[in-house]
Amino acid sequence: MAHPLWQLSASEASRRMSRGELSSEAYVRACLARIEAREPDLLAWAAVDPDQAIAQARACDAAPRRSALHGLPVGVKDVIRTRDLPTRFNSPLYPDFQAGEDAHCVAVLRSLGAIILGKTSTLEFASGGRIPPTRNPWDLARTPGGSSSGSGAAVADGMTPLALGTQTGGSTIRPAAFCGVFALKPTWGRVPFDGIKGFAPHLDTVGFYGRSAEDLALLAQAFPLVDALPAPLPGPLRLGVCRTPLWHEAEPQAQAAFEALIEKLARDGVALREVAFTSDEADINRWQDEVMQDGGRYAFLPEFLAAPDLLHTEFKAKLGNHLGLTPERMRQALDRIAQARVGWEAQLDGLDGVLTLSAPGVAPLGQHTQGMATFNRMWTALQVPCINVPALWSQAGLPMGLQLVHRRYEEERLLACLLALVPHLDTERHPWSEHADD
Amino acid sequence: MAHPLWQLSASEASRRMSRGELSSEAYVRACLARIEAREPDLLAWAAVDPDQAIAQARACDAAPRRSALHGLPVGVKDVIRTRDLPTRFNSPLYPDFQAGEDAHCVAVLRSLGAIILGKTSTLEFASGGRIPPTRNPWDLARTPGGSSSGSGAAVADGMTPLALGTQTGGSTIRPAAFCGVFALKPTWGRVPFDGIKGFAPHLDTVGFYGRSAEDLALLAQAFPLVDALPAPLPGPLRLGVCRTPLWHEAEPQAQAAFEALIEKLARDGVALREVAFTSDEADINRWQDEVMQDGGRYAFLPEFLAAPDLLHTEFKAKLGNHLGLTPERMRQALDRIAQARVGWEAQLDGLDGVLTLSAPGVAPLGQHTQGMATFNRMWTALQVPCINVPALWSQAGLPMGLQLVHRRYEEERLLACLLALVPHLDTERHPWSEHADD
Repeated sequence: MAHPLWQLSASEASRRMSRGELSSEAYVRACLARIEAREPDLLAWAAVDPDQAIAQARACDAAPRRSALHGLPVGVKDVIRTRDLPTRFNSPLYPDFQAGEDAHCVAVLRSLGAIILGKTSTLEFASGGRIPPTRNPWDLARTPGGSSSGSGAAVADGMTPLALGTQTGGSTIRPAAFCGVFALKPTWGRVPFDGIKGFAPHLDTVGFYGRSAEDLALLAQAFPLVDALPAPLPGPLRLGVCRTPLWHEAEPQAQAAFEALIEKLARDGVALREVAFTSDEADINRWQDEVMQDGGRYAFLPEFLAAPDLLHTEFKAKLGNHLGLTPERMRQALDRIAQARVGWEAQLDGLDGVLTLSAPGVAPLGQHTQGMATFNRMWTALQVPCINVPALWSQAGLPMGLQLVHRRYEEERLLACLLALVPHLDTERHPWSEHADD
Repeated sequence: MAHPLWQLSASEASRRMSRGELSSEAYVRACLARIEAREPDLLAWAAVDPDQAIAQARACDAAPRRSALHGLPVGVKDVIRTRDLPTRFNSPLYPDFQAGEDAHCVAVLRSLGAIILGKTSTLEFASGGRIPPTRNPWDLARTPGGSSSGSGAAVADGMTPLALGTQTGGSTIRPAAFCGVFALKPTWGRVPFDGIKGFAPHLDTVGFYGRSAEDLALLAQAFPLVDALPAPLPGPLRLGVCRTPLWHEAEPQAQAAFEALIEKLARDGVALREVAFTSDEADINRWQDEVMQDGGRYAFLPEFLAAPDLLHTEFKAKLGNHLGLTPERMRQALDRIAQARVGWEAQLDGLDGVLTLSAPGVAPLGQHTQGMATFNRMWTALQVPCINVPALWSQAGLPMGLQLVHRRYEEERLLACLLALVPHLDTERHPWSEHADD
């Protein structure tokens, strides 16, 4: 039996569209049908307008192809402004807010022919406060992670092949890990943050979601972080292994799956070498948190001034400098991060990428938590590009993320490395497939 | 004869309003009359709506005072979005663009009771391309500097007591120097850039204009970069003197005025000590340019995709990576800047601020140039707060800027230092006063 259309990856759908074998309308309708069927369980969307999405798809079908993204649907995290759907930030301050203007990243995708399918659920302002009700498609009792909860869940469940998120701590990579999808957090600053609600300017980064390595490359090419779609690196691969100073905070099942994968890669002929932080750098996640919380001292001031009663107490605490940050501590945090960045990147000569965990383990149970950013904060602080690869699985078949990291501005090498790495990995599992019950 | 109301500084107007001696409407009407009289010569404004400004002022006069900014008019650089005036970026791509939403910095000022008086002229996208026709109020044959051309000229000429600008290279401090007004470029990242057209994310900073040290403190308190209005530092002041590796590019008249001022301060009992860049750091302005141009590879992509024919060729060159930047060069530029930042700030123990030039000399003749950012690029790259002080004057009576700089996050100490320093300086000159013809 043929697979339903909504199961196609963006890249495969793009190929079929370019050959005239698939219309955007048919693909978008399949995604909308999947949303209709699954949204009552997943609650991944803050806004979908099916008529509008279909109208966009028909317009694309009637127009010359503008790029490989032409006709492909994209979900947009609801802290990113869109001109034709509400942008609510999961905040009671913006109950019906209509931006009337696309954020930079949305404008680029739309100009290249992508369909803005809907807005995906988010933690309030991607920063704290209200947790969205979104559930993990692998186990509805678990969190999909956050703050890009809806983007991770919707891509994992076949509701949309592509989505946009953001990351300030671990908000793109962690949901990707918990939901078992590919995601790329690019080098800080390469994809402009214009039109997105900011939290901490040193850290805020746009993130990309897809269901294959090629899908991430499609999005990377749009901005353009790569000049052309990269080819897989010729072997043998040379990879770093970075267990980070927080390895003891990973679940034993995540550590074990990671070590088993490293052994397999060694057997496959991948050259592996350890990459480490120094003991002086063990506090990097705390420095990241100081820089992030300092952003919160300023980011939510307009909302506080406009309607303090509607602003969650967590944001008021941030505005009140709840960490007691001083100019000295801010400079120390930033300068130690800068020093760690140089030291960490200096170890990467001759390496095609570095492997680490994306999350401490499987998605936690419950809707009161979004899990920990333990294995994300340091990379966000270092501003390096990182990719979640759905390649580690618990005994119960739940996704645990493998993370592939490189130096700043190396998206092209990182994606080429990923394309060469994927054939060694077990990434072809989906919540709708039999693997879910392995 | 009493001075016209438009000559009042923001701080003095605020005091009179708080005592019930001045209405916002009267002050705003005086500014609007000044604009009407002088705008044909200066061309400092991209949009003014007098009725709307007066309506805002009347509403303020009828409401309880919300802050020291209550009722004070502010000019807003036309790359900063405003909900009730067009935002055109000096670009033919946005001929009648109505944002419908205030940028973060505008929302904060409006919530505190400030009057959004109008939009001030700017270099296209604050980045290149079209130079606005704005003239220097001290000499109509000269540039006011840029890219915040209108903000600098309008504050200098009494059209508005306060204005907002931005700085990526020297776009706030240089117009302040050429127009002879006070301006503050805060620590990078402290005032969120949300709602402003970005150029280079490592550098883009909101800037403040006023006609006194107290005016800058009023704006700094709004965000809040200072907890309370700072008091002048008790003497004796301890200041660094930084001639920078580019001193040879300053005009002899600027060098001479700076050295004469240093001698005067020494005679006044100010303790002075040299602060230097190392010879390894002499290329910091080139690194800044690489980081800035790299931003341009991504910032203008939506405009290029939407209407390439309307985008100035300069932006197309930026999009085309005209400097041939590589990942390695970007990391080198950023890491050398980070190292220079640590080395430079480490010299400031025990200093209340550091003096340098704001510009190489007086505003150049002609409307084809906006002058050089030679003495701004390094500070923007270092992300440190800096203030232009209108305290250096050419033989012909034209302003040349003195710059006061400190470590990141030290806005409070910097403003307290400025307040103690001003009594030693010759800052009370205006284009409308007899000094203009000295």
